[in-house]
Amino acid sequence: MTKNRLEAFSDGVLAIIITIMVLELKIPHGSDWESLRPVIPVLLCYIMSFIYVAIYWNNHHHMIYTVKKVSGGILWANMHLLFWLSLIPFTTGWMGENHFTPLPVALYGVVLLMSAAAYIILQKQIIKKQGNDSVLKNAIGKDLKGYISLILYLIAIPFSFITTWVSEVSYFLVAMMWLIPDKRIEKNLDH
Amino acid sequence: MTKNRLEAFSDGVLAIIITIMVLELKIPHGSDWESLRPVIPVLLCYIMSFIYVAIYWNNHHHMIYTVKKVSGGILWANMHLLFWLSLIPFTTGWMGENHFTPLPVALYGVVLLMSAAAYIILQKQIIKKQGNDSVLKNAIGKDLKGYISLILYLIAIPFSFITTWVSEVSYFLVAMMWLIPDKRIEKNLDH
Amino acid sequence: MTKNRLEAFSDGVLAIIITIMVLELKIPHGSDWESLRPVIPVLLCYIMSFIYVAIYWNNHHHMIYTVKKVSGGILWANMHLLFWLSLIPFTTGWMGENHFTPLPVALYGVVLLMSAAAYIILQKQIIKKQGNDSVLKNAIGKDLKGYISLILYLIAIPFSFITTWVSEVSYFLVAMMWLIPDKRIEKNLDH
Amino acid sequence: MTKNRLEAFSDGVLAIIITIMVLELKIPHGSDWESLRPVIPVLLCYIMSFIYVAIYWNNHHHMIYTVKKVSGGILWANMHLLFWLSLIPFTTGWMGENHFTPLPVALYGVVLLMSAAAYIILQKQIIKKQGNDSVLKNAIGKDLKGYISLILYLIAIPFSFITTWVSEVSYFLVAMMWLIPDKRIEKNLDH
Repeated sequence: MTKNRLEAFSDGVLAIIITIMVLELKIPHGSDWESLRPVIPVLLCYIMSFIYVAIYWNNHHHMIYTVKKVSGGILWANMHLLFWLSLIPFTTGWMGENHFTPLPVALYGVVLLMSAAAYIILQKQIIKKQGNDSVLKNAIGKDLKGYISLILYLIAIPFSFITTWVSEVSYFLVAMMWLIPDKRIEKNLDH
Repeated sequence: MTKNRLEAFSDGVLAIIITIMVLELKIPHGSDWESLRPVIPVLLCYIMSFIYVAIYWNNHHHMIYTVKKVSGGILWANMHLLFWLSLIPFTTGWMGENHFTPLPVALYGVVLLMSAAAYIILQKQIIKKQGNDSVLKNAIGKDLKGYISLILYLIAIPFSFITTWVSEVSYFLVAMMWLIPDKRIEKNLDH
Repeated sequence: MTKNRLEAFSDGVLAIIITIMVLELKIPHGSDWESLRPVIPVLLCYIMSFIYVAIYWNNHHHMIYTVKKVSGGILWANMHLLFWLSLIPFTTGWMGENHFTPLPVALYGVVLLMSAAAYIILQKQIIKKQGNDSVLKNAIGKDLKGYISLILYLIAIPFSFITTWVSEVSYFLVAMMWLIPDKRIEKNLDH
Repeated sequence: MTKNRLEAFSDGVLAIIITIMVLELKIPHGSDWESLRPVIPVLLCYIMSFIYVAIYWNNHHHMIYTVKKVSGGILWANMHLLFWLSLIPFTTGWMGENHFTPLPVALYGVVLLMSAAAYIILQKQIIKKQGNDSVLKNAIGKDLKGYISLILYLIAIPFSFITTWVSEVSYFLVAMMWLIPDKRIEKNLDH
């Protein structure tokens, strides 16, 4: 019951986040190719953020599936995750409109870093409540992917003040790494 | 379970897409008939896009109904479809505000074409997972309507640079062709 | 199943309609009472429209509860209703920003009239599919409230070009008339 | 059934409220630290309002869980609560953009006060329908936290015209007081 509403609320917030980002694609006043040009960097940022939110939805979905008991800690860790994800439309729009200048690229990374940290906190809260033999605990193992992501973000953020393309490639690599939903959880669930 | 959240998330995104389009109907500053006039082409585009998103919701709904097993491929094919549909508010607004000039009309068609292709990909992913004897496979048969739509879009897009009304009529014809929910699936489900 | 997704999608669209209306409350630049003044008529319109959408949600909810079989006709009649309701944020904002001038007041009524008509069409589609002995058929009887609303709107719309307060009072009266959820359906359901 | 749709609709509205607030974080035109500065007070307001809406979702969720029978009174008391909560994005944005000047701070408190009152009304409607031995009745007891909140708001609102930090601290204290979901209901549910 409680779990259902947690899912429904999270689905609602994630659906809105992924869709209001498209409002940052401001409609150009002209109708030729020239007027479409400033939209392109914003569109590229939109695509990357769309993939990120889709990954979060996908993995959130697999993770919540393993939850049997909900605690106050889980509810608030989930809200904390949604908070950081809700800032993605802002950083996406800022990065796109300023053509990947250092500060917006760094801030984009900070929000991704905090979201990743919030996800790990939520994971820990769920395992704490379900016990050490829980499906999730066995599935994520040492959570290598989670910690590699954190490290890549921590490298990418300061790098954006030297050269932004290193940061952009890092963000892209993390997305690619996560694009495939967590096979480990799926496998464990099949047993 | 997994299927329920897939439906819930898709419903959420489609509900938001269909509703934020209305935000492109900018409130006029005056309050006479004259000030209402620039709203009319935007309203016409809104009506067409509303019908399109409604058709996608309707058919998506029938299609997901036949799903018994969800795979990672289905989840991502669904996200891919939602991505292209999420661009409809942008192209709708651009076409409406520029009174059906060539480039916006062509881009509107490109997004419809990519959405239709994404829908066919999702269909193939579902059939692949459910097997060749699946309800969906029998229901869509050779998917004539799907491929006719693709062809009509492919004709409409270049035509918009010659004369836009051919494109507009094509988009309208495709919508009319799909307006009726897929009787074939309904029939197969009744057995 | 089909009915559940119909409800979920309608709930989503109605929740978004009721909430995006609040975006028309533009944040004033100053921070004194004077700068708050232009917000007041928009707020009044927002309250009225909020009540209207809440009434529609309430009655839609009771009506769909009686549905046992869903048809293509019901799905499309529902979409048609959602279309007209989706225009309410636009007419609400226009009426509020122009301080109840004739044309916006009339257009507000036209959208209410079309929504009411769409609701009656949906009702007829549901009764048609469920049969003449259906709960809904017995519950609404001759649907006096439905037809009185239509008549009041038809009086209110032309009147707005003579004097707008007659229209405003009419809209308010219709809302009051519907504010109480349909006791008849509730009673019939209890048996 | 009825309860499910009540939850679904409330979840939808709360998810949208919490997410559209982020649209008030206007994307700055520049891309340096200087241009980011005006965003900071808006971000602080966003964080506080995010916590408030999250608290309402959390407690609403626990409260509705105890509901066995839904009445028209409950439906409308719920709508009344959603109405006041829907004004939070407006007051949040106004307070943030005007750097905590008296009137916006006071109005922010008024909306919080009315939301808290609406929550108590909804509570009373639920208890009235479920009976005096209901889980909710036993769980909230004398509802000390509810009434302390009202008193703190009533102090904070006039104080904002003398010095705004007293008001801000009050709003913050109330949020902290509620941050922990109502243990009493959880305990009662466990039996």
